[in-house]
Amino acid sequence: MPTIVTAVFTPKEGAKQSLIEAFEATIPAVHAEPGCELYSIHDAEDGTITMIEKWTTREQLDAHGRGQAVAALGAAAGPYLQQPAVVTFMTPLPAGTAEQGAL
Amino acid sequence: MPTIVTAVFTPKEGAKQSLIEAFEATIPAVHAEPGCELYSIHDAEDGTITMIEKWTTREQLDAHGRGQAVAALGAAAGPYLQQPAVVTFMTPLPAGTAEQGAL
Repeated sequence: MPTIVTAVFTPKEGAKQSLIEAFEATIPAVHAEPGCELYSIHDAEDGTITMIEKWTTREQLDAHGRGQAVAALGAAAGPYLQQPAVVTFMTPLPAGTAEQGAL
Repeated sequence: MPTIVTAVFTPKEGAKQSLIEAFEATIPAVHAEPGCELYSIHDAEDGTITMIEKWTTREQLDAHGRGQAVAALGAAAGPYLQQPAVVTFMTPLPAGTAEQGAL
């Protein structure tokens, strides 16, 4: 069963675009990590940048969390954040069709 | 550009399984709606049920919000919720590879 993650980042006032650029610079390295099926950012109407991730195994997600790309991302994004990211780990509950019922 | 939605549902104490079953009963009808590319639920470590959705157009998402399936879902899930759902609409910011950088 894959692990899904949401991470909600609240930018400082006026820093949303800089935050997006920090993510864009780091995302290719994350996409190259083992088990990374989805690592995507979104411009949310609540003013945050919301990341949605899918990792093949929890072990690979944990390795990602200890890796260089996350450290680089934290260093690049940190100055633009108003507060620490809110990160939530979750397990899929597939329902309905296979295509629509799970990431 | 599709619209992505997260909806975070906080169950009353002891009601998580009933809430999941209410979703499972309604999800097939939502999957049959025009523009529904993804409508998926997750058992989150923060104790919530987190829904992640993808709709082909904002107009189709809005029609979904006015439709029978959402009304049925609200009626079925309402008794099990500790507070109103926290719903966030967002626009993808594709980055990195096409497969990994966007839902």
